[in-house]
Amino acid sequence: MLNFVFQNETRIIFGKETEKEIGRETKKLAKRVLLHYGQGSIKRSGLYDTVVSSLKEHGVVFSELGGVMPNPRLSLVREGINLCRERKIEAILAVGGGSVIDSAKAIASGVQYDGDVWDFYCTLTEPENALPIGVILTIPAAGSESSAGSVITNEEGLLKRAFNSPLMRPKFAILNPELTYSLPAYQTACGVADMMAHVMERYFTTVRGVELTDRLCEATLRTTVSNAKKVFKNPRDYNARAELMWASTIAHNGLLNTGRIGDWASHQIEHEISGIYDIAHGAGLAIVFPAWMKYVVNNDVERFVQFSSRVWGNEIDPFNMEDYAHQGIESLKQFFSSIGLPTSLREAEIGEDRIEEMATKATQQGRIGNFVKLGKNEVEEILILAK
Amino acid sequence: MLNFVFQNETRIIFGKETEKEIGRETKKLAKRVLLHYGQGSIKRSGLYDTVVSSLKEHGVVFSELGGVMPNPRLSLVREGINLCRERKIEAILAVGGGSVIDSAKAIASGVQYDGDVWDFYCTLTEPENALPIGVILTIPAAGSESSAGSVITNEEGLLKRAFNSPLMRPKFAILNPELTYSLPAYQTACGVADMMAHVMERYFTTVRGVELTDRLCEATLRTTVSNAKKVFKNPRDYNARAELMWASTIAHNGLLNTGRIGDWASHQIEHEISGIYDIAHGAGLAIVFPAWMKYVVNNDVERFVQFSSRVWGNEIDPFNMEDYAHQGIESLKQFFSSIGLPTSLREAEIGEDRIEEMATKATQQGRIGNFVKLGKNEVEEILILAK
Repeated sequence: MLNFVFQNETRIIFGKETEKEIGRETKKLAKRVLLHYGQGSIKRSGLYDTVVSSLKEHGVVFSELGGVMPNPRLSLVREGINLCRERKIEAILAVGGGSVIDSAKAIASGVQYDGDVWDFYCTLTEPENALPIGVILTIPAAGSESSAGSVITNEEGLLKRAFNSPLMRPKFAILNPELTYSLPAYQTACGVADMMAHVMERYFTTVRGVELTDRLCEATLRTTVSNAKKVFKNPRDYNARAELMWASTIAHNGLLNTGRIGDWASHQIEHEISGIYDIAHGAGLAIVFPAWMKYVVNNDVERFVQFSSRVWGNEIDPFNMEDYAHQGIESLKQFFSSIGLPTSLREAEIGEDRIEEMATKATQQGRIGNFVKLGKNEVEEILILAK
Repeated sequence: MLNFVFQNETRIIFGKETEKEIGRETKKLAKRVLLHYGQGSIKRSGLYDTVVSSLKEHGVVFSELGGVMPNPRLSLVREGINLCRERKIEAILAVGGGSVIDSAKAIASGVQYDGDVWDFYCTLTEPENALPIGVILTIPAAGSESSAGSVITNEEGLLKRAFNSPLMRPKFAILNPELTYSLPAYQTACGVADMMAHVMERYFTTVRGVELTDRLCEATLRTTVSNAKKVFKNPRDYNARAELMWASTIAHNGLLNTGRIGDWASHQIEHEISGIYDIAHGAGLAIVFPAWMKYVVNNDVERFVQFSSRVWGNEIDPFNMEDYAHQGIESLKQFFSSIGLPTSLREAEIGEDRIEEMATKATQQGRIGNFVKLGKNEVEEILILAK
């Protein structure tokens, strides 16, 4: 087990009707806030009205900026930063899924920075301060509600880049599973793939002596799989929605990689796919992860055997351990298919013509991944396995 | 799953040689601190010298109060409070195990309170503020290093009482598994029982739809059992010591009871045993828990079946589910015995003569437990099962 520092101070307010707490919680942070959201589903669902009345009740003044799209855009972030400066905004409220929260984080960190916020995402510099952020989560997937990370797409060059800073970690996050009842099945499935990917990026490590976090990862994966199945049978199963929502946060709150080093190559490869083709991040991960696994399995068959056994409950065949390791990958792929996700580029109607370009972009800052270090050629081979 | 609020802001600094960070971390909290410790083992091990030189290096001025005993005493807490007031202490550093940390928490909450600190433990009132606390942990067991709770024994009447306040949660906790190499086997075993009890108190719930936290509990229990076995083979197995240490924190940091209600009757019954007989808390729990389980198993056989299967890996016998449920209890008892713990009052050389007195004291504020509500007669029956 490696040395580590772990701290996650986000206050999680979880359960039925908790969105009504937004005014009370926000008031502790600021009096003048930016209400940031997506493409209007919160207005159709009535959530917007609940938020507005709770803010008014607690005397919180707000400006609005909607319009965040999946794979959130830098241009809207810049607009948000200008708005915050003009209106002397003191905090950002993100009401939505990971894209809205990531956009809010970018705005929060850019407001008091003299340069261009994109500098952070190019790792040229780091923010020295940021506005506090509060969240109402509507899509369990990205884990951004209690993470320190943000992913933004720069329309110039379709560059999708991630950035982490503890200053961007939300002060509070309100999670009401009922708000996810109305999610379309495909979006639920993409969220499931995203949260599972967050766990698997951490699970596939070369660090030894990490049994506790291995088992915590396996617990989170098994729970996600079994409750995804329940949600697909009954989208209004409260407990199943609640398990998925809490699992999505735990998958990415930093606990599961204490004492170990994650991989993250699959995420970086996926960012190139969704950066160019604008498919959902979760769908891209369902395509990349099984291909990545097939490419790297022989580097640590034992770990894949453990994955096959403990996550998928396959019965061990000690005479064919390699086959058995592959069986775990097959189980994952079949699960993704069963919830309606593509598991190949072809199924997502993506051709082969830009594979080399994606491999080049994914590795332009050097080799990626930790479980196995991947250069351009290796990424290309993985994308070919994903065809 | 029930609604919940979860927040744990303790900064965990984990790994080899991390005790050298104490000066740097303390300086962020205060310039004038109380160094609180136990009965001198930190002086014999050299830890005291490391702490002192790190504090001096960072210009932190300190007063000292050693002498904390297992089942920490109210009289020393009062002495600490007076010392802090006299010396204008701004923060408490607890260097030791759960008893030292619990004593530090009591002092920290009492310093700025006009009345007697015991009021908090009698739930007469709550602190409005408390001095910040920093920790170097030397015994993985109580989980006090990132919990909001403290247990103190009042010598008058041998009353052992628990109290919780988020103000008492440590600001940072330094965990170096190497510091636990020198723990005597019996103390290691008591710690293992204590951390497992913290998980099991949460695990045995009547709340349904809590698969994620069930599985996280099972992950923590399995890891504790397998690494305890490794540590008993080789007390200097770094990874095994590290797994136990991190598991002890996770067992009690609040995560494992999100969305559910724990039981805690076994803890309350044990407090009466160690309050009177001054045995180690972990040893008392190893006696009480199996007896409590035998008493309550028929109230929810399915949960005990899950415990028997998922924690102990027993093969399910669908034709004899009650026996199978009992098999899990037997597995726990055998494990406790295998690491040298008593699993009956007799083995701890405790007679039957004060059973009624203990049952009376445990229930004097009303029925205890949540999995099953227990009155005086029921507690007496459990203690008789524990004979």
